Amino acid sequence: MNRRRRVYEGKGKILYEGPEPGTLIQFFKDDAAEPGITGEVIDGKGVLNNRISEYVFSHLNAIGIPTHFIRRLNMREQLVREVEMIPLVLTVRNIAAGSLSRRLGIEEGTPLPRSIVEFSLKSDELKNPLVTEEHITAFGWAMPPELDDMVALAIRINDFLSGLFLGAGMQLVDFKIECGRLFEGDMMRIILADEISPDSCRLIDLQTRQRMDRDARGGAAPNAHSEIARRLGIMNENEPARAAGPVLVK
Amino acid sequence: MNRRRRVYEGKGKILYEGPEPGTLIQFFKDDAAEPGITGEVIDGKGVLNNRISEYVFSHLNAIGIPTHFIRRLNMREQLVREVEMIPLVLTVRNIAAGSLSRRLGIEEGTPLPRSIVEFSLKSDELKNPLVTEEHITAFGWAMPPELDDMVALAIRINDFLSGLFLGAGMQLVDFKIECGRLFEGDMMRIILADEISPDSCRLIDLQTRQRMDRDARGGAAPNAHSEIARRLGIMNENEPARAAGPVLVK
Ligand SMILES: Nc1ncnc2c1ncn2[C@@H]1O[C@H](COP(=O)(O)OP(=O)(O)OP(=O)(O)O)[C@@H](O)[C@H]1O
Ligand SMILES: Nc1ncnc2c1ncn2[C@@H]1O[C@H](COP(=O)(O)OP(=O)(O)OP(=O)(O)O)[C@@H](O)[C@H]1O
Ligand SMILES: [Mg+2]
Ligand SMILES: [Mg+2]
Repeated sequence: MNRRRRVYEGKGKILYEGPEPGTLIQFFKDDAAEPGITGEVIDGKGVLNNRISEYVFSHLNAIGIPTHFIRRLNMREQLVREVEMIPLVLTVRNIAAGSLSRRLGIEEGTPLPRSIVEFSLKSDELKNPLVTEEHITAFGWAMPPELDDMVALAIRINDFLSGLFLGAGMQLVDFKIECGRLFEGDMMRIILADEISPDSCRLIDLQTRQRMDRDARGGAAPNAHSEIARRLGIMNENEPARAAGPVLVK
Repeated sequence: MNRRRRVYEGKGKILYEGPEPGTLIQFFKDDAAEPGITGEVIDGKGVLNNRISEYVFSHLNAIGIPTHFIRRLNMREQLVREVEMIPLVLTVRNIAAGSLSRRLGIEEGTPLPRSIVEFSLKSDELKNPLVTEEHITAFGWAMPPELDDMVALAIRINDFLSGLFLGAGMQLVDFKIECGRLFEGDMMRIILADEISPDSCRLIDLQTRQRMDRDARGGAAPNAHSEIARRLGIMNENEPARAAGPVLVK
């Protein structure tokens, strides 16, 4: 096996140089990405996120929402288009939770009057602070038409994901995405990059009204990823989601 | 003297029912309005803020920026139009300071690429959290055209104040304003309400480059209000800014 050039290592993924210029390989790790539980490992999570993100991105591509996803390569890797990342995280919220509830004093679980799209600056050090269009354009993080494109993408993705999860017995509370600039000849467009997986979505079980990613005591639910994959019909029961060691892909 | 109906008491001011419908009397207290030093009293501050706010608001009225200010009544009081307050604080920033510096990791004193207008929700309990147009319109705190009007007011006020303070040897770092809805017959317009005073502005002395409202050690400068009033040519040296007790207005 050839040794590949590592472009970037984050909490949840490693990026390697791809086989052709303009491509990258996204490797999904098992490391827990959530603040507070960094350092922990959820066995098989990377395998599941790779599959779930493949499933979501390929359907988004199919309905005309441009994404970086090209194809899944193996259990833990997918081939994507390299983009110039925009240093913003977009959060789309349907129900109050997390920082919105804390900051604005709105009880968790309250349905929002309408979906709300938030931008925050991608910075672990500053804990992804909420930013407004004023901050974004004044500091040159993105331009107004790019923000419009990102909001339009975010709203379409929310429509698709809300339907997808509803059909699988879950309610989409909120999710986050990252976008990038794809240059093709003289053209530049904003496309969806990174991942959409249980690590970037808050989901409620429609039957029990419980958060899918939290156990009864509010701790991380160990089987959340595989349960979500199962409901989406992605992993069949016999497939080895939890790889104890290196696994050969058939 | 007639006992008046008290409409509201805040940290810095008391509002009384005015002499005619649609008017209010704003009484300026000496209480320190800043978080952290609540409870403290700065002798004569209310008198100075009443004068400084009168000076600024009457000049804003004169250049066609609509404000609630009608006239000063006495040392501590001014007559204003009653408005329906919009529960937002607008902050206009020219130089990085305070929460912007902390939240976005930009060193205090850094000139901003352009002036930035921020909205925050007026809530002592939630510590005036930053909000975006999305939050404001989703929760019905104001409507998009009202936000446009407020931003336009804020930018004009920033132009005027920047000039005013520059002419008096000071640089305007940032300031905050509150606006309200004024109903006149079938018309509704957004006007500037509340106050503009050293309590709502951050100022730098152009000679020393020191913050005017902070002493060398970073504590509250006790003479900031009277020094700012003096530089603006508002209080002459012999006028009794610091009233030891009730003072008769000539
Ligand atoms: N198509 C792409 N082209 C270039 N960079 C990408 C692309 N898709 C995702 N990225 C970047 O790859 C990195 C993925 O790493 P990862 O998500 O593990 O780390 P992180 O986002 O820095 O941290 P975390 O998600 O844990 O907060 C991110 O920085 C993301 O912005
Ligand atoms: N023209 C007006 N009509 C009605 N209400 C007004 C008008 N101008 C100002 N107000 C309100 O009057 C109050 C002034 O009180 P004050 O500024 O002391 O208290 P606060 O704003 O609640 O607290 P603080 O400013 O100390 O954070 C504010 O609530 C302000 O919104
Ligand atoms: Mg990431
Ligand atoms: Mg106030």
